[in-house]
Amino acid sequence: MSYTQDDLQRLKTFYHNQLVNDTIPFWFPRSYDHEYGGYTFMRDADGALIDDDKAVWIQGRATWTLSTLYNTIEPRQEWLDGAKLGYEFLQRHCFDTDRRMFFHVTREGKPIRKRRYFFSETFAAIGFAAYAKATGSEIIAAEARQLFGKCIEYASTPGLLPPKFTHTRPAKGIGVPMIMINTAQEIRNTIGDPRCDEWIEKWMEEIETDFVKHDIKCVMEQVAPDGSIIDHIDGRTLNPGHAIEGAWFILREAMHRNNDQQLITLGCTMLDYMWERGWDKEYGGILYFRDVYGKPVQEYWQDMKFWWPHNEVIIATLMAHLLTGNEKYARWHKMVHDYAYDKFHDKVNGEWYGYLHRDGSIAQTAKGNLFKGPFHLPRQEWFCYQLLR
Amino acid sequence: MSYTQDDLQRLKTFYHNQLVNDTIPFWFPRSYDHEYGGYTFMRDADGALIDDDKAVWIQGRATWTLSTLYNTIEPRQEWLDGAKLGYEFLQRHCFDTDRRMFFHVTREGKPIRKRRYFFSETFAAIGFAAYAKATGSEIIAAEARQLFGKCIEYASTPGLLPPKFTHTRPAKGIGVPMIMINTAQEIRNTIGDPRCDEWIEKWMEEIETDFVKHDIKCVMEQVAPDGSIIDHIDGRTLNPGHAIEGAWFILREAMHRNNDQQLITLGCTMLDYMWERGWDKEYGGILYFRDVYGKPVQEYWQDMKFWWPHNEVIIATLMAHLLTGNEKYARWHKMVHDYAYDKFHDKVNGEWYGYLHRDGSIAQTAKGNLFKGPFHLPRQEWFCYQLLR
Repeated sequence: MSYTQDDLQRLKTFYHNQLVNDTIPFWFPRSYDHEYGGYTFMRDADGALIDDDKAVWIQGRATWTLSTLYNTIEPRQEWLDGAKLGYEFLQRHCFDTDRRMFFHVTREGKPIRKRRYFFSETFAAIGFAAYAKATGSEIIAAEARQLFGKCIEYASTPGLLPPKFTHTRPAKGIGVPMIMINTAQEIRNTIGDPRCDEWIEKWMEEIETDFVKHDIKCVMEQVAPDGSIIDHIDGRTLNPGHAIEGAWFILREAMHRNNDQQLITLGCTMLDYMWERGWDKEYGGILYFRDVYGKPVQEYWQDMKFWWPHNEVIIATLMAHLLTGNEKYARWHKMVHDYAYDKFHDKVNGEWYGYLHRDGSIAQTAKGNLFKGPFHLPRQEWFCYQLLR
Repeated sequence: MSYTQDDLQRLKTFYHNQLVNDTIPFWFPRSYDHEYGGYTFMRDADGALIDDDKAVWIQGRATWTLSTLYNTIEPRQEWLDGAKLGYEFLQRHCFDTDRRMFFHVTREGKPIRKRRYFFSETFAAIGFAAYAKATGSEIIAAEARQLFGKCIEYASTPGLLPPKFTHTRPAKGIGVPMIMINTAQEIRNTIGDPRCDEWIEKWMEEIETDFVKHDIKCVMEQVAPDGSIIDHIDGRTLNPGHAIEGAWFILREAMHRNNDQQLITLGCTMLDYMWERGWDKEYGGILYFRDVYGKPVQEYWQDMKFWWPHNEVIIATLMAHLLTGNEKYARWHKMVHDYAYDKFHDKVNGEWYGYLHRDGSIAQTAKGNLFKGPFHLPRQEWFCYQLLR
């Protein structure tokens, strides 16, 4: 099979409709916290609040989501006002005295937990950048650029942040170059920054050189600093949905460079390798973790189906199809799209469940918690709609 | 139903046979590391090594297991020599320069990771104590007592170890008083220590006063320092198998005190409350996490069936039955015993699988990894055999 122009038109309408009439209305206006600022996102299937704490990642991501809807879908005052709540809450409550950001705060903004990573900072950076574009504020744009600069510093200075492991067996993850490519792409799209192109190039090179293994047709999640495979449980653990997210960041860069063929090949190759390792041939859907050599994985939820890898694979397969015309990618896109909207989508309350057992049954009903909120799903529906428009 | 004397005899033989002819032979002699000391326990279902790293918790626990078999089942030289490997490896490689212990080291004993907790220390303390008894060494007994003293200090001095969370919402877990009761009981049984009785009493009081909630028939996993329930996702999360492990530590203390009725009532009440919350009425087995108010839990594996809660519930229900004669506990014991030996036990290779989906199907095949090794299962089989002897 392949997609006809009619099919693509229907998909475009579908994604737009889901985004604006199903996903976003699940979260807003109910999650705006007019009393303390920010958003209350930890919600059960029907929208009932299960915890009024705030996850800093998701406060930043939602600021991005609302600002991006305002900038690209429709300039609704509600979305701009909503983005302001997130921006102000992050500024007021989510930075520690050392200017590093917290991970988890109370509804009022008191700190609960700070982690060793700088993902709070990357999400705040894209949130600030999109909000700066929405408001036209040069002050906020400067704040976003400063935060982006801090992220570059953390990403390129090993040892700057406290390590989780000793120096016995040094390792690096694909997550850092990936998130930094995406952060730079978002900064470039919204407020622009002269550092973006050069750094994106470096991070793509790092992924290609150190993480993509052609001999075993694999994208590693973690490697030694020289790119060699660490043959221990952690080092062998693959995250196919994450690697495929990296693939579409590279395909997006290919589009930005007038369909650069080398980057299209790199992104599609990463998708090919990790579809083969991640797609569950028995039950459908994307398995969470796999071992590079097929051995048992440490993480207990390794064969569950999580919502977000499906969002990433829906984007990657659609982009790969549009960029190459290859029917295989249309077929894969239809497989993952049909699986995801069948199994994850809550037809009663809107939005998606987050966590399925391997067999596709629902493991738990939370729509929002410390790690899930209005980001991967609305980003997928927004991005696919943009691609098809 | 209840258990006849014949049933109990059959169970005694069964546990002894499983321990000596099924569980222990899976691990030994293949896991003795004669080259670097210690044990290589990260193994697949058939015993194949999947990682030669060493988890410090399990090095200490296995030193305890082998020494305990030597002390109480049969004075086999192999077990004594095996315990020596663990004792010496822990002493040589698992202490940092600040005398706190690592969590994860390489085969050679180089540190990979150190955590904020002192569970490595508690397991080394009981391993050293049991090995001191096996060898009759006063030097090793003194080392065990010193380590026990460090554990008491960590357990009773809030803030001595680096915190994971800020001070915004202080909390304490049932894990600390529980592990300390068990550590003190093991020290008392093997080498004796004048501090044990007094501290056991304090930790049992803390559990009864702060963690057992009669109004909602529940044993909390975490509470505020004053014992109040923290109504946020983490604070609401229950671990029924863990609470039931705590119940049998208290029943064991009741036996030590000539069947103290108050302690029997406390232990049985904890078991009653958490059986009701943990037993899966649909598929059988013990669910891993539950929310105290039935809301969604953050941890992804919340409805999986892990091996070790079943070991703990098998012990607790058997003790409760033997101490009270209540038929309910015989029925529960038979339910959890039959479920566990049907679903977890590997009839081909021996030992148990560690991780089942909610429906009882095997999620992954590892017999050993960072958290699983020769401890909960052999301890259950050993302890139930001792009870029935």
